[in-house]
Amino acid sequence: MNTSDLIVIGGGAAGMSIAAAAKRARPEWRVVVIEAGNWISYASCGIPYYIGGEVKSLDSMIVLDPKTALEKKGIEALIKHRIESIDPNAKTVTVVELDNDRRFEMKYGKLAFATGASPVIPPIPGIECDGVFTVRAIDDGERIKRFIEANEAKNAVILGAGLVGMEMAESLRNLGLSVTVIELQSTALGLSDSKMSQAIVSHGESHGVKFIFGGKVTDFESKDGKLVSVHTDDEEIPADIAIVGTGIKPNVELAHTIGLELGACGAIYVDLQGAASRPGIYAAGDCAQIRDLVTGKWVWFPLGTTANRQGRAVGYSLAGRITQFKGIVRAAIAKFFALGIVSIGVPKHEIETIGWQIAETTIKANSHSGYYPGHEPVFVHLYSDLGTGRILGGQYIGPWRSAKRFDIIAAAVAGRMTTEDLAYLDIPYAPPFGTVWDPINIAARKLMI
Amino acid sequence: MNTSDLIVIGGGAAGMSIAAAAKRARPEWRVVVIEAGNWISYASCGIPYYIGGEVKSLDSMIVLDPKTALEKKGIEALIKHRIESIDPNAKTVTVVELDNDRRFEMKYGKLAFATGASPVIPPIPGIECDGVFTVRAIDDGERIKRFIEANEAKNAVILGAGLVGMEMAESLRNLGLSVTVIELQSTALGLSDSKMSQAIVSHGESHGVKFIFGGKVTDFESKDGKLVSVHTDDEEIPADIAIVGTGIKPNVELAHTIGLELGACGAIYVDLQGAASRPGIYAAGDCAQIRDLVTGKWVWFPLGTTANRQGRAVGYSLAGRITQFKGIVRAAIAKFFALGIVSIGVPKHEIETIGWQIAETTIKANSHSGYYPGHEPVFVHLYSDLGTGRILGGQYIGPWRSAKRFDIIAAAVAGRMTTEDLAYLDIPYAPPFGTVWDPINIAARKLMI
Repeated sequence: MNTSDLIVIGGGAAGMSIAAAAKRARPEWRVVVIEAGNWISYASCGIPYYIGGEVKSLDSMIVLDPKTALEKKGIEALIKHRIESIDPNAKTVTVVELDNDRRFEMKYGKLAFATGASPVIPPIPGIECDGVFTVRAIDDGERIKRFIEANEAKNAVILGAGLVGMEMAESLRNLGLSVTVIELQSTALGLSDSKMSQAIVSHGESHGVKFIFGGKVTDFESKDGKLVSVHTDDEEIPADIAIVGTGIKPNVELAHTIGLELGACGAIYVDLQGAASRPGIYAAGDCAQIRDLVTGKWVWFPLGTTANRQGRAVGYSLAGRITQFKGIVRAAIAKFFALGIVSIGVPKHEIETIGWQIAETTIKANSHSGYYPGHEPVFVHLYSDLGTGRILGGQYIGPWRSAKRFDIIAAAVAGRMTTEDLAYLDIPYAPPFGTVWDPINIAARKLMI
Repeated sequence: MNTSDLIVIGGGAAGMSIAAAAKRARPEWRVVVIEAGNWISYASCGIPYYIGGEVKSLDSMIVLDPKTALEKKGIEALIKHRIESIDPNAKTVTVVELDNDRRFEMKYGKLAFATGASPVIPPIPGIECDGVFTVRAIDDGERIKRFIEANEAKNAVILGAGLVGMEMAESLRNLGLSVTVIELQSTALGLSDSKMSQAIVSHGESHGVKFIFGGKVTDFESKDGKLVSVHTDDEEIPADIAIVGTGIKPNVELAHTIGLELGACGAIYVDLQGAASRPGIYAAGDCAQIRDLVTGKWVWFPLGTTANRQGRAVGYSLAGRITQFKGIVRAAIAKFFALGIVSIGVPKHEIETIGWQIAETTIKANSHSGYYPGHEPVFVHLYSDLGTGRILGGQYIGPWRSAKRFDIIAAAVAGRMTTEDLAYLDIPYAPPFGTVWDPINIAARKLMI
């Protein structure tokens, strides 16, 4: 029988991180990655930029010759193969070779789930028509790009003002399409601060993006199977392409077949070393739960950063080099035309559910010295635990090249700093870069009062 | 008798921060700032950019009408006045009005030193000739600019490859002068990592700056009192202007007249609330010592960031709103042509003197995703305490607009984070901004091994 020390289900960021770490810790192991799609380890975060044309070629975002690349690392990959069933008692999996429907069994020592997540397709009439897309896999990027070219698409509607929706709005505007973003909630990117959301919306509008907040799509109208308009409660918007960015869900169907427990967040239950609820079985990435470093709660936060870190720690741990990824600070960043938007920390609604009281502030400051050319306004939103002053999170909006300055909040949250620590923190200053009291200092000072 | 609740000696960043904080805490106080120069609270960090032409007008860097500006805050300022003597028993000062040499006495409740620092003029023959400048006060900036214009200066020599020397090298190149930087030590900016120093030097050379390391200036040669060349041990460099950037020293002469103690670093001894060694007397800024947050040692670190933070805390404290500025992390940043250079943390030679063992690494990484346009190499140098893994500091070199990402190390050092914390820290990622494992993660991971 075909036997592996470790079988990893899924060749995305988490799966490849698991495989690589395990192989580093145990060079003598046979490690096999099984991936149903056409590609392994591709850069899915780059898809909007490929569609928009900033990234010229898909080749730069994929591993062109995965077999050779992986063989160097000593990892085997079965691409276009799917695991059909698992027998956890016998420690075997049944694998289907998708191109020819051939089936075979493999035996494993340890098994790791890195099955990722999939877009949620809302049950809206007409959504199956030609011209409606989700943006998740690299093939989606190629399909969208080809569709726009082939149909000379002119009018786009985007469902959801989340990260993907906003990035796609920019990309499609860059291609010259008219773009309308429809969002069920009242703010962009789920921001709780309406002033900050308004700054982003105004910026988008200045680049020709239309927004409909509190808008519900009721129908996709098509003609000869092709999308022609998107209907909301009270509008009909002409559209030859629509992007559905209304969320994703963890892929837990296969885990379900062998009775793996799910966490309260709906993703596969794991501990800090990635062990799932059955011995010898692990999970990481978008299909698994992850710990919030601040609250200690297990949550679902499906980003590439999380997948890489959790995958690496799980790969080491299952191979015997115990490594705990202690948790995330929910770090996310996006470029939206000339703006950079960053969010770090525990979402406010979650803090309130665990009974902490929040102090919060939003300031508008100069990106750098008022006398040095090129300064622009930035917004900093910070919040802390009222009792202890501990910094719990915040958001930043500013010129996009300035946005990584907010990384400091990732360390402030992880390092359990207080508003007082941050208010007086010695942050690097020179006129081209910042102000003598950094916007972070100013916001933290205001939180102290 | 002319009586004040608080007299502040010096109207720079520290002095104005003390005065403003004290007045906020005690609105009923009479607060008087005494400044010997022509200006208060000017942006001395901007002087190189004014000389180089990025900042077009001095007006943007100074308080044009200080009397009115301060009156709004309820602070009085005596500009072009100098304190000649202090009687700490009677709590009086003798003030000289510099324009007319008139003297008068003032009585104070509390007295704060914010006397700043002055350039060290090395005892090199000929240094007093026309064309040799230091860059410290706003008037220096104006003088240098006028001298270059009036004399159509073509060849500049800069003594010292420190912050001021490097910023001036860029500014003078921007004006079209030839520039030679002579540095006694073997690296730029006092960097301990020679690879990083070399990257900076090569970048400067690509912009036409010449460097002489390990070079000692022996003589300034002049003709009719005007500089014509600068001599080193083995070279003669034609020069019609020279900038001396070889260091500064704290202004402690007045403090010395009343027997204020100095710290081991040579600046005025103060405690965490800014109290000097005599009751009712305080100090802050470039004339005073400051605590290093990591080692707990008192050091001298004369930057505007320090002056503002210490000044504010001291102003509040002496007015009864006790505020401790717990210390600095030695944060400094500079732009050098297209590069941003950042240094944060305890200098390595100091760590070794307190008996800690250092682990260190330098990595070269991509500023952001290799498939997104515009990525450039960055260098990250990190070091930690070998025993505990605590991050003690590091340096960064990269495209200048990316340099504030290194702010994260200020929080990591202040927040007592370890290499392990930082190796897995969830740092915001999207393709235009960074890599899924941020260069900071990569450097910290390497430190763990």
